[in-house]
Amino acid sequence: MSKKTALVISAHSADFVWRCGGAIALHEERGYDVTVVCLSYGERGESAKLWKQAGMTLEKVKAERRKEAENAAKALGVTDIQFFDLGDYPLALGAEAKERMVDVIRKVQPAFMMSHSKWDPYNTDHMYTTQFALECRMIAQAWGHNPGEKVLGAPQLYLFEPHQTEQMEWKPDVFLDITPVWEKKWAAIQCMEGQEHLWHYYENVAQNRGNHFRRNSGGQAGGRDCRYAEGFQSIFPRTVDEL
Amino acid sequence: MSKKTALVISAHSADFVWRCGGAIALHEERGYDVTVVCLSYGERGESAKLWKQAGMTLEKVKAERRKEAENAAKALGVTDIQFFDLGDYPLALGAEAKERMVDVIRKVQPAFMMSHSKWDPYNTDHMYTTQFALECRMIAQAWGHNPGEKVLGAPQLYLFEPHQTEQMEWKPDVFLDITPVWEKKWAAIQCMEGQEHLWHYYENVAQNRGNHFRRNSGGQAGGRDCRYAEGFQSIFPRTVDEL
Amino acid sequence: MSKKTALVISAHSADFVWRCGGAIALHEERGYDVTVVCLSYGERGESAKLWKQAGMTLEKVKAERRKEAENAAKALGVTDIQFFDLGDYPLALGAEAKERMVDVIRKVQPAFMMSHSKWDPYNTDHMYTTQFALECRMIAQAWGHNPGEKVLGAPQLYLFEPHQTEQMEWKPDVFLDITPVWEKKWAAIQCMEGQEHLWHYYENVAQNRGNHFRRNSGGQAGGRDCRYAEGFQSIFPRTVDEL
Amino acid sequence: MSKKTALVISAHSADFVWRCGGAIALHEERGYDVTVVCLSYGERGESAKLWKQAGMTLEKVKAERRKEAENAAKALGVTDIQFFDLGDYPLALGAEAKERMVDVIRKVQPAFMMSHSKWDPYNTDHMYTTQFALECRMIAQAWGHNPGEKVLGAPQLYLFEPHQTEQMEWKPDVFLDITPVWEKKWAAIQCMEGQEHLWHYYENVAQNRGNHFRRNSGGQAGGRDCRYAEGFQSIFPRTVDEL
Amino acid sequence: MSKKTALVISAHSADFVWRCGGAIALHEERGYDVTVVCLSYGERGESAKLWKQAGMTLEKVKAERRKEAENAAKALGVTDIQFFDLGDYPLALGAEAKERMVDVIRKVQPAFMMSHSKWDPYNTDHMYTTQFALECRMIAQAWGHNPGEKVLGAPQLYLFEPHQTEQMEWKPDVFLDITPVWEKKWAAIQCMEGQEHLWHYYENVAQNRGNHFRRNSGGQAGGRDCRYAEGFQSIFPRTVDEL
Amino acid sequence: MSKKTALVISAHSADFVWRCGGAIALHEERGYDVTVVCLSYGERGESAKLWKQAGMTLEKVKAERRKEAENAAKALGVTDIQFFDLGDYPLALGAEAKERMVDVIRKVQPAFMMSHSKWDPYNTDHMYTTQFALECRMIAQAWGHNPGEKVLGAPQLYLFEPHQTEQMEWKPDVFLDITPVWEKKWAAIQCMEGQEHLWHYYENVAQNRGNHFRRNSGGQAGGRDCRYAEGFQSIFPRTVDEL
Repeated sequence: MSKKTALVISAHSADFVWRCGGAIALHEERGYDVTVVCLSYGERGESAKLWKQAGMTLEKVKAERRKEAENAAKALGVTDIQFFDLGDYPLALGAEAKERMVDVIRKVQPAFMMSHSKWDPYNTDHMYTTQFALECRMIAQAWGHNPGEKVLGAPQLYLFEPHQTEQMEWKPDVFLDITPVWEKKWAAIQCMEGQEHLWHYYENVAQNRGNHFRRNSGGQAGGRDCRYAEGFQSIFPRTVDEL
Repeated sequence: MSKKTALVISAHSADFVWRCGGAIALHEERGYDVTVVCLSYGERGESAKLWKQAGMTLEKVKAERRKEAENAAKALGVTDIQFFDLGDYPLALGAEAKERMVDVIRKVQPAFMMSHSKWDPYNTDHMYTTQFALECRMIAQAWGHNPGEKVLGAPQLYLFEPHQTEQMEWKPDVFLDITPVWEKKWAAIQCMEGQEHLWHYYENVAQNRGNHFRRNSGGQAGGRDCRYAEGFQSIFPRTVDEL
Repeated sequence: MSKKTALVISAHSADFVWRCGGAIALHEERGYDVTVVCLSYGERGESAKLWKQAGMTLEKVKAERRKEAENAAKALGVTDIQFFDLGDYPLALGAEAKERMVDVIRKVQPAFMMSHSKWDPYNTDHMYTTQFALECRMIAQAWGHNPGEKVLGAPQLYLFEPHQTEQMEWKPDVFLDITPVWEKKWAAIQCMEGQEHLWHYYENVAQNRGNHFRRNSGGQAGGRDCRYAEGFQSIFPRTVDEL
Repeated sequence: MSKKTALVISAHSADFVWRCGGAIALHEERGYDVTVVCLSYGERGESAKLWKQAGMTLEKVKAERRKEAENAAKALGVTDIQFFDLGDYPLALGAEAKERMVDVIRKVQPAFMMSHSKWDPYNTDHMYTTQFALECRMIAQAWGHNPGEKVLGAPQLYLFEPHQTEQMEWKPDVFLDITPVWEKKWAAIQCMEGQEHLWHYYENVAQNRGNHFRRNSGGQAGGRDCRYAEGFQSIFPRTVDEL
Repeated sequence: MSKKTALVISAHSADFVWRCGGAIALHEERGYDVTVVCLSYGERGESAKLWKQAGMTLEKVKAERRKEAENAAKALGVTDIQFFDLGDYPLALGAEAKERMVDVIRKVQPAFMMSHSKWDPYNTDHMYTTQFALECRMIAQAWGHNPGEKVLGAPQLYLFEPHQTEQMEWKPDVFLDITPVWEKKWAAIQCMEGQEHLWHYYENVAQNRGNHFRRNSGGQAGGRDCRYAEGFQSIFPRTVDEL
Repeated sequence: MSKKTALVISAHSADFVWRCGGAIALHEERGYDVTVVCLSYGERGESAKLWKQAGMTLEKVKAERRKEAENAAKALGVTDIQFFDLGDYPLALGAEAKERMVDVIRKVQPAFMMSHSKWDPYNTDHMYTTQFALECRMIAQAWGHNPGEKVLGAPQLYLFEPHQTEQMEWKPDVFLDITPVWEKKWAAIQCMEGQEHLWHYYENVAQNRGNHFRRNSGGQAGGRDCRYAEGFQSIFPRTVDEL
């Protein structure tokens, strides 16, 4: 059987680190090839610290953000990271971007995909990325799109954890134990030098999701001693042979 | 390791057949011991055909309904079926019934539980059963309830498929392939002689859920050729080591 | 064919006036026999004006409220008004009350029923009345409940307009033109002497629902010139031969 | 009075058959002129069987799909079927398409319109079609759009049944008895030669919706013996003179 | 400390009057500078009365609508009113419009913003305006957008009251007492000569919202004697030092 | 003017500490008298650590839990703490308990009340407590309940933060800066010796809510440097004179 793969679609170049860095590192360790696509560098909207420096330019910010993301990807063991450079705040998600994304999806043939929450009033880039992911998944499934290519199956789309979950109408239905790879995620987080104010925030998140994992795996009556976890919301139903 | 177990809480004595007969038979084949608790016989509210017969009495209806349920349970390979005889339309779900149910839960120590949808404007017995199941699960987890007994862990509560799903605000997040045990479910269905008008209905449901299984496992690009399936809605998040 | 009938279940004795007085008067004019059941007089919770008077007693309040409700019922042409006197704030909706209500439902055999909104954080009597209405409807449909009686069919349950609709998660899906009977509703409203502060409020509601009727029947391009309307939310789907 | 009309907006050329073929045939028999607009042929995304044939081209697929749709329309007695040929997966719903659709709406002056569900994570074409339908309905109501033309009133927009209803957040509020025209719908379904795997699926749907019709029209206590039905979700409230 | 400011984004030129005229007048009296941006004149879709006159042209309608809006703004004491003239039914909310709006937001630096409801099936202009407002707010917060300009903080976005609130899924969480400025709002309303059919409607709304204010500030046990109020739904959580 | 007061209704004796200890301490510092009612000690369901000790009895657990709660209350500066001792898992919330609670509410005349989330599938005690709080609030507002007593106005009911917020359908709409009293809350938390596994969890929560406070008060463009916060969901709309 062929290699297992996964695909993460990240609106800005740091999102994949905070939101699913553990899942990436864990699945890489389990033999998956994980591809990360950063639609933008978050160069305008998520680089306040850089812009406060004198003489900053858009190109400098993008270069710096790219370097940080590449370092984080390396720390997580990402197989392939791609930068679509579509601009941010707002993202430009037109026909050409869709074609390009569909090509990646078709090539990767992911067992599962990841993207943002369905609603985000703070950051419309996030929610439009999810619409974009759904639309591209649909196109990749079309037998008449670039006939002859391998058509996409039905990979799950997991929505990774947004900031301020309750405001985003995001509800996790699966918790993943990332304790074995926490050190990798922590290292990746520390690559995001421009957003140091978020490091501890996401450490807290990981610890508290670990608590949720313990509670949902049995609590004080047999729960797993998970220390760090990540939560995800599934868009599609699962198909199983045992509950 | 000890035997795997499951617990089905059925408001009326036929519900477990239509709604999760396949899951029962399949997990029995996989080595689970499945316990079914029928809170009532559905003697008043779901036995119209019997009541249309001359000289019918409540006891006769209950006896007939019990016989049908026992036959269906046998067809499915149910390990244990219990009848709480709490009355129906409406169910009487008081303190004593809770104690009794908690005892069963503690004894079974189910890997997962099953019950009805959260909302059912046609049949309040159904939705009160789900509240009852949640409350009893909570009590069974309390270390101070009958101290010394084995405390319950954190079993999933699956809500099985109601009639008219959309009116019940029920949304399946997992489909189970019951093709290998369809003949058993079909045999069990045919034990419900008083509700013959529903046999074909639930055959259609099983076939169409099979279609949904095929679609969600890959569709025309690699989907499983599932012929019959059942859908379930999970109340609690899952805890996993791989997505 | 037999006479058409309808049944209104009103938590407190004034609710049927404000919320569906127009529907009652209109259907009476159309030949329906409308029965109104007031579960309580609203004697404790909705009679502030009376309680501010010196020497007031519970019995005096109840007598006064009953008189007002009877006058309003007469103004609307109500066929039958019954007072269950179950107490209010909170209502006592036990087994006996259910039996009594089921008897009324079976006797009336309503083409449609009316009750309160599903959610009301200001007034739990209202939302428990709706649960009660659904449960009694279910019991009345049970062939084994008082076998031999005529079993209930499947009447629609309309939720009439609550105060502060948006807080009650109430959404009307049908508007009824009550222009022809507005004078009757206005007369009935004026019977509620203890709640004069609400008269103009519900006049405004009726006018603005008239605007909604006009808009939804065609607006400036052919809408009906409705002056007064009432809105209702349906619990169950309709069954039709033409859309 | 002028002829009654209806308008169906179908994202891909087969949608109108599965989802509202019965409603079309029934209303044609009742004297309505029903117009169907197929925004695309579903040539890329819903023609897997054709694309698996050797030497297939986009034009051939479109021609084949058009032929099937025309045959189905004929079987249903459709008055007028139009193909906008906007491309599929994804649909291109730009300003020009809107103008064209508004022209059709204005010309047809439908008593009611039909379209897809509001949400569809499997198929964004479907949900964007509904947004498109709402937007075009709004434009058609504008007195300043092509002044002098007959302005649109306030037709209901019915959302017809999607695949996997629960995943689409679709809830039917009206069931239409299509028993009298089932043979026509079944004939139309069989015109869709490229999607034979769906024939039996939608036969099951029609039968089970018939069960829902029976249940909601009275069940065992007087329900109509409907054999086949279709369900619809209304976007707008109704305006009536009797409940 | 600098002057307090607020920004209202109105899809069509009359929306700000009906929906938040009281809030504007009140805050102006309290020392705020309120800026109103009308994205369009509502020239095509909300000027039926004008279009029914002979010889009407788009330019005449726009001029008339502008005059009415300016008069209303004057009556309310609006500090600045701007007309983006983007066309209506549908609005054209492209990249250029966003740039222009972001410039206004940055310049005004509002303490709070106002816009339409999130959902409006009757009028897609309304809901797209809210998406537009959220997107522009996000861009205005980006440090890399026009570096050097003052970056936007985190103003609340209030959704003002739509027509037919329940159909728009709008739920007010704050009521503002506009009794002190009602005369100004009433004067502004009367400036909208082309929509006289709505004057009384919004008077009723203001009175009934006054009732809601009274009820929520204590009712008969200490509630404020508010006569007129407006309701708003907040998108973002508040940050406070006392509850 | 009289003293400001607040009332916290805590299902189990530790809930008020984790969920609103900061709000209590802060409002006490601001001059409020805060009353805490613990409906139970959480003696059966939230005292696993104690029950694991040899020779434990229900009375010992209750005594220990009471001592912890009293110590925590002292640390927070609570004015009055009352223990209703209604039993837990499940709570017994009958007519007598309601009477008692209404008496407290009437006596305290709170400016605001606090309780649990509306939904909690893990812990039905929590959600029934919220129903109980709403019902008692309603009774306390009834002029006919114990006539002559001071009738309750319309205090806000804040739902404090549950465990696993997203599973509880809880969405905070207000964040309170508790930085000035964090040391008090931390001291109170450490009084809960039996639940040490939760100390760090709620420290993380407080820090991350501090991040949300910063973000919603302006973020990097002027946000308050809040270090610790608590979030609350309001049931009722606010009434204000300025937005």
